[in-house]
Amino acid sequence: MDRHLPEGGLALDSLAEQMLQPGVKGLPLTEPLRQGAIPVQRWNVLRGDTSYPVALLKESALLHNLDWMRRFCDRYGAVLAPHGKTTMSPQLFGAQLANGAWGMTLATAAQVQIAYRYGVRRVLLANQLVAPADIRAMLALMRDDPAFEFYALVDSEEGVQRLSRGVAEAKLARPLPLLVELGLPGKRAGCRTPAEAMAVAQKVARAPGLQLAGIEGYEGLLQGHDRAASVEAVRAFVSQLAALVRQADGKKLFGGAQILLSAGGSAYFDLVAHGFAGLTGLSRPVLPVLRSGCYLTNDHGSYQDLTHDISAREHAADGLRPALEVWSMVTSRPEPTLAILSMGKRDASYDQELPIPLYHHRPAADGGTEPATLPPGCRIEKMNDQHAYLRLPEGDALCRELKVGDLVGCGISHPCTTFDKWPLLLVADDAYTVRYAVNTFF
Amino acid sequence: MDRHLPEGGLALDSLAEQMLQPGVKGLPLTEPLRQGAIPVQRWNVLRGDTSYPVALLKESALLHNLDWMRRFCDRYGAVLAPHGKTTMSPQLFGAQLANGAWGMTLATAAQVQIAYRYGVRRVLLANQLVAPADIRAMLALMRDDPAFEFYALVDSEEGVQRLSRGVAEAKLARPLPLLVELGLPGKRAGCRTPAEAMAVAQKVARAPGLQLAGIEGYEGLLQGHDRAASVEAVRAFVSQLAALVRQADGKKLFGGAQILLSAGGSAYFDLVAHGFAGLTGLSRPVLPVLRSGCYLTNDHGSYQDLTHDISAREHAADGLRPALEVWSMVTSRPEPTLAILSMGKRDASYDQELPIPLYHHRPAADGGTEPATLPPGCRIEKMNDQHAYLRLPEGDALCRELKVGDLVGCGISHPCTTFDKWPLLLVADDAYTVRYAVNTFF
Repeated sequence: MDRHLPEGGLALDSLAEQMLQPGVKGLPLTEPLRQGAIPVQRWNVLRGDTSYPVALLKESALLHNLDWMRRFCDRYGAVLAPHGKTTMSPQLFGAQLANGAWGMTLATAAQVQIAYRYGVRRVLLANQLVAPADIRAMLALMRDDPAFEFYALVDSEEGVQRLSRGVAEAKLARPLPLLVELGLPGKRAGCRTPAEAMAVAQKVARAPGLQLAGIEGYEGLLQGHDRAASVEAVRAFVSQLAALVRQADGKKLFGGAQILLSAGGSAYFDLVAHGFAGLTGLSRPVLPVLRSGCYLTNDHGSYQDLTHDISAREHAADGLRPALEVWSMVTSRPEPTLAILSMGKRDASYDQELPIPLYHHRPAADGGTEPATLPPGCRIEKMNDQHAYLRLPEGDALCRELKVGDLVGCGISHPCTTFDKWPLLLVADDAYTVRYAVNTFF
Repeated sequence: MDRHLPEGGLALDSLAEQMLQPGVKGLPLTEPLRQGAIPVQRWNVLRGDTSYPVALLKESALLHNLDWMRRFCDRYGAVLAPHGKTTMSPQLFGAQLANGAWGMTLATAAQVQIAYRYGVRRVLLANQLVAPADIRAMLALMRDDPAFEFYALVDSEEGVQRLSRGVAEAKLARPLPLLVELGLPGKRAGCRTPAEAMAVAQKVARAPGLQLAGIEGYEGLLQGHDRAASVEAVRAFVSQLAALVRQADGKKLFGGAQILLSAGGSAYFDLVAHGFAGLTGLSRPVLPVLRSGCYLTNDHGSYQDLTHDISAREHAADGLRPALEVWSMVTSRPEPTLAILSMGKRDASYDQELPIPLYHHRPAADGGTEPATLPPGCRIEKMNDQHAYLRLPEGDALCRELKVGDLVGCGISHPCTTFDKWPLLLVADDAYTVRYAVNTFF
């Protein structure tokens, strides 16, 4: 049998059974097609079979990254609740859970509802839960399904009161487990000092219907231009989080069988795993929960860069591999050094940097040959809503050769802001033959 | 009967009948809800009934803008094919067509397929049509439905050949009507000189299966920092387009009963309408086709700014009104001048500028009172994927008063990049009571 992404027992049949209508970006449909029938089409992206732009995931890279991360977590005794906001794809959630993920992290109540719909049964909402409608929605899931394990964050007395009131109103029979968020001065949410965090932790421990389940922080906000300084700042913050766990445990504030200690975005999860390891001698076991979302696809931009640093710190022979590419077609060649591509702000990330042009290829009936690497100096210099401007290096042979109808493959920087532009992404083998599709829900 | 957005005869019943599942952003669902049952919920955004963030369209502004644009086009004898890529919303397409739009403009083959699915029967694809799958898809629509009127652009000999071959392969019984695109040096697609455009026009006129239907350009690319210079450049470009029509007509290149002459994004459509008016004495009537997409919702940022200039040039007493707002909730108040909002890059435009904070409101059971205007100096200083950083002016009373759970209403800059973040937007009255929903398909 082929090696492919395992489904992890999630209820994904409904997605395979759904009829895709003409108009799904990237697909060459003139008639409706059952999603589960995509593999037998044997579309090849290099042969020009699909519509363009098309978003592709390289299956070999996904499988490598799933395996890499599982081994990483095992090494440190940490568990992974990958941030699902990155992909919001039930099939990819399934692959992550089947590869040892402890649960999923999510950012909003709506995202939790989607994950729940497709079978995810353990969720860390790495965010404050404040809006009445959102509190009701999350507590309804907990009330209606005793097997649904749910954790949220809190960083204020107002938050504690709202959640305690919510539990009473929902007539929830079990306590709502919360992690107190420790923040960073000048940064996002979270208590600004360990003392403030302790005060909130005490309020949680005393509030009816709530349980202090752990401590949380997000070290990813410490990214700065001075990399060495960022690493030092992350280490210090991670120590603060661990110290806060000890302090709260000393005051007997935690409920439940274990203490969750969670941090770890996609840039410094090695430092977090290091700093959380070996926290023993407390009233109950500590479970370090990492939350990287971008490890799964990595990228050709900022995350590749950041995870190279992780590999270097870990002395790892092999790092995470970029899996996500957006292929577009040259639709106009108005000037020798300018090609207009059928890809725009609606199709690829532009928040950290513009897409990174990697390959070009002239579609041919025999398809899946290797695409050629673009020469140095090629860059996307601008995107409009539906177009990209590919600038070619003056004097390069490509200025003569690149034609209307040729394909250009780009890497992206920051997977989260590319996934949210595609209701459906195609998973391809290394010869760019499409194996199946994954859905996203944004 | 209430005044509301007319449906324009589009096949929208399927959308009203669909069951919305919990997890649709902005909706306070714990159970599935039929979309057509939204009006009877009487959700009020100021009362805190929905989830947050939520994207809202003010119905009064939409109706005003529909009416304003209809009167504008009538005054100049131009027709409107509004750019549907802005909203990609079948209900809004329906409202535009019911308010006199001649057809819809779209940017990609997938967008055309979606518009067709919901009943749009006249489309200008304001883009090169190059990919084989896209050519096949568009010609299949034309072949299978003789009532479907479709126009595309072309700017190269390669493009002409592909389309001519496509028509032969599709066994299309009628010619494919094309507009030759005149571009601008250094800018996007399109022939760089009128001479090049004439050469392509001649190739279209001679190619089997194709018909030269008109001339097209996009003056919006001339936006620059020097506004007066931009206006002059637009005027010159518009004259060039008109001259090209005369020249091609002199050479008897046009087919069909009329000549389409199209330009006019959302920034300078008055200059285009002016420049295209009164083009007579040709072999057949000229139909000036404007394509603004952003007139419908306008915004609180760059388009408001640009359309103020239009109103000034037109000596209009009343201009277009901003209709689109994103409301979010304060989820954390970690520092006196900092509020963290439940809105991020996934929810609001950030490509032209960050969202513009307008209002704050503390939800109360009696709901729809006026929200308070935020004091000057409030600004969104940053967004992450799912969070915004609202900075408050130091020393302002709001630094004490703004609380976790309060609502903040923001305007946005550039509607296109907010619409594509919402599968469903809520249409509200001026008291922020939700009247119904519109869907988008990206």
